[in-house]
Amino acid sequence: MSKVHNFSAGPGILPIEVLKQSAESCINFDNLNLSLLEISHRSKSYDAVMDEARFLIKELFGVGDEYEVLYLGGGASMQFAMVPYNLLTENGYAAYVNTGVWSTKAIKESKIIGNTKVIASSEDKKFSYIPKGFEVPKDADYLHITSNNTIYGTQYKEFPKSDIPLVCDMSSDIFSRTVNAQDFALIYAGAQKNIGPAGSTMVMIKKDILGKTGRKMLSMLDYQIHIKGGSMYNTPPVFPVYVTLLTLRWLKQHGGVSWIEKINQQKADLLYNEIDKNSLFVGTAAKEDRSNMNACFLLSKPELEAEFDKLAKEARIDGIKGHRDVGGYRASMYNALPLESVQLLVDVMKAFEAKYA
Amino acid sequence: MSKVHNFSAGPGILPIEVLKQSAESCINFDNLNLSLLEISHRSKSYDAVMDEARFLIKELFGVGDEYEVLYLGGGASMQFAMVPYNLLTENGYAAYVNTGVWSTKAIKESKIIGNTKVIASSEDKKFSYIPKGFEVPKDADYLHITSNNTIYGTQYKEFPKSDIPLVCDMSSDIFSRTVNAQDFALIYAGAQKNIGPAGSTMVMIKKDILGKTGRKMLSMLDYQIHIKGGSMYNTPPVFPVYVTLLTLRWLKQHGGVSWIEKINQQKADLLYNEIDKNSLFVGTAAKEDRSNMNACFLLSKPELEAEFDKLAKEARIDGIKGHRDVGGYRASMYNALPLESVQLLVDVMKAFEAKYA
Repeated sequence: MSKVHNFSAGPGILPIEVLKQSAESCINFDNLNLSLLEISHRSKSYDAVMDEARFLIKELFGVGDEYEVLYLGGGASMQFAMVPYNLLTENGYAAYVNTGVWSTKAIKESKIIGNTKVIASSEDKKFSYIPKGFEVPKDADYLHITSNNTIYGTQYKEFPKSDIPLVCDMSSDIFSRTVNAQDFALIYAGAQKNIGPAGSTMVMIKKDILGKTGRKMLSMLDYQIHIKGGSMYNTPPVFPVYVTLLTLRWLKQHGGVSWIEKINQQKADLLYNEIDKNSLFVGTAAKEDRSNMNACFLLSKPELEAEFDKLAKEARIDGIKGHRDVGGYRASMYNALPLESVQLLVDVMKAFEAKYA
Repeated sequence: MSKVHNFSAGPGILPIEVLKQSAESCINFDNLNLSLLEISHRSKSYDAVMDEARFLIKELFGVGDEYEVLYLGGGASMQFAMVPYNLLTENGYAAYVNTGVWSTKAIKESKIIGNTKVIASSEDKKFSYIPKGFEVPKDADYLHITSNNTIYGTQYKEFPKSDIPLVCDMSSDIFSRTVNAQDFALIYAGAQKNIGPAGSTMVMIKKDILGKTGRKMLSMLDYQIHIKGGSMYNTPPVFPVYVTLLTLRWLKQHGGVSWIEKINQQKADLLYNEIDKNSLFVGTAAKEDRSNMNACFLLSKPELEAEFDKLAKEARIDGIKGHRDVGGYRASMYNALPLESVQLLVDVMKAFEAKYA
C-alpha cells in the first residue's frame, strides 16, 4: 500500500524508522519485557533515554555546558508564560517582535507578567514578511522572536544581532538548518514538528540568565527547579521524550543538521519555483522571507479549489489545507518529508495547470 | 517468554490489549495509513479520540454536564499550582489535609498563591494513617485532599463531608473503586497509574466553581480557557490521551469501576493477609487506612533483604522496591495488575518464610 504524503503543519511527519521503533517500545522496551508506557521514569533504562535526549540537543546545536536542556509538558504555549515568568524583572521590560499568531500569543502572556514592548511587527501586511533593520534595545531584559511562522509561511533568514539575551521560539524549524546557537540565550520548541510527537517541549537555556527576577515562583514554572531535577522534577512525558530521542538519533545518524539543511533547501526550491512558474498559484509570503518549512500559496482562480483538492487527494497528498485564519494552501516540509513527496505535489500542480489554465 | 510481573508504583502497568493497540497506532492510526504520532490534532480522527476520552471520564464517574473534563500536560504537579490559581480568592483561604509527600507539595504551591491552612495532618506519625474527625471549615474557598498516598500506602476509606468545594488528587487510585463523584468539585489525576501512560493529567471540574478569584490569569493555567478550547486550546499530549482512551475503554468493556473494585479488593486482601500472617514481614500503614493500590511493608529481619530480592527477581517480580523516602517494599496493585501476579508475590513471600523464618 502506498504511503500517504504527509504535509501536515503539525503534529507533522516523522521518519518511518522512528515510527517503527516507537511501536516496538510500546510492547517491549530495552529488552525489559515491559512496555515503555508502564515503566518507572526513575528506572535505569529511562534515565539513559532522558540523558541522551538532553545531550543530543546540545550536540546538534554545538553548545557546551553553559546550556541546560529540559523536556517539559504543556507545549510551546506554556513557554509563552514561562519565559517572562523566569526572565522578566519587576522594573524591567521584555522586547518582542511580532511576526504572527504565535508571537502575538507570546506577547499576550508576557504582558500579564510584566512590562512588555513590541519593538517591531509585520502586522501591517498580514504578517507576510519578517521585520528588518529594527533596533534592539540595550536595556530590555530579553528579546523574543519566532524563527518560523507556520501560519504565514515566513522565516527569519538572518537573526537580529542582540546584546541582550535572545529568546527564540523555534518550534517549527528547529534543526531544519544550521544556526549559530551560541547567539541565543534560550531556545524552545514544541517537539511536534521537526523533533518528535506532541506532548513535550524542548527548552535549551543558558544557565547564567536565570535567577534574576526575584519573583517567588511556582515550582512547575521555575526552570531552575526543572534543571535541578535533571528534567525529571516530576514525571516527564515519558513516551514523547523517547520518540524525540529516536528522531534526534535519526538526524544525527544521517549526517546532522547540515545534511538535512541541504535537502530542505532542495525541497523548498522545488516547490517555490513551481509556485512562481505556475499560472494557477500565487505565493503569499514576501519572497526573501519565505519559509523553507511551510510554503503558503493561493489559487489564482479560487473557483478551481474543488478540482485541485481532488487531484491532490488522488495522489494521496494529505494536510495541505491552509490555516483557518488565512485560507488557501500550506505545504509543510518538515525534516522527515521526503523530496519525492514535494516532487509529487509539484507534478500535481503541473498537471492541474495543464488541465485548467 | 513469561511476562514480567509489574508492581511499579508509577508509571504503572497497563492492560496488554491497550499496549498492543497503542503500538498499532504508531504505525497506522484509524486506517489513515498515517501514524498517530504525525497527524494533526485538529483532524476528524483525533477530535473523536479527545471527545470520547473526555466523555468516558464522566460516564465512569456517573456525572452530568455540570462537569467538564480536560487532559493537560505537566503532570499532577502542575495541578498543585493550577488548583489554587483558579480557586483561591485574594481575601479567602484554602484548606488542605496533609497525608504525605504529594499533599505537602500541593500545600507548598498553594502557599505561593495565597492564604493556605493545613486543617489536619498525619505528619506526626510519618504519614502512616489518614486523619479523621477533623472539622471542615465552612469559610474556606475549598478543601484539598489526596485520596491515596503512594509512598506511605494509605488511602481514604471515607471522604470528609464538606460544604465547601472538595478538591481531590486521585492520581493513584482513580477508577480503582466506586466513589460518589458528585461530592467532588474537582478531581485530578496524573494518568500514569490507573488510566494511561505518563504525559497527560485528567482534570474533571464542576464548572460553577470557576471564575471567582478575579485573578488575571496566564492562559495555560486557566481552566476556563482550556474548557473553551475543548481541551485543545493548544496542541494536547496526543498519544498519551489516546492510550488513556484505550485504557478507559478497556475498563468500561470489562464491566466498569464496580467490576475492577472487586478484583482490587481481592488483590489487596490476598497480599495484606500474607503480610499479617508472615513472620518475616511487617505492614507500615495503619490497618484501617491501608491502600488497596500500594501495599507498603518492611522485612522484620532487614538483614535478609538480598535473599528476598533474589527470590522476587527469580520469579520475575519487578518494581517492589519501596520509595527512597521510606525504604522497605511497596507492591503497587493498579487496575491492570492481574490477581495472578499478587498470588505469585504471596507465594514468594511464603517460600521466603519457609526458608528463613
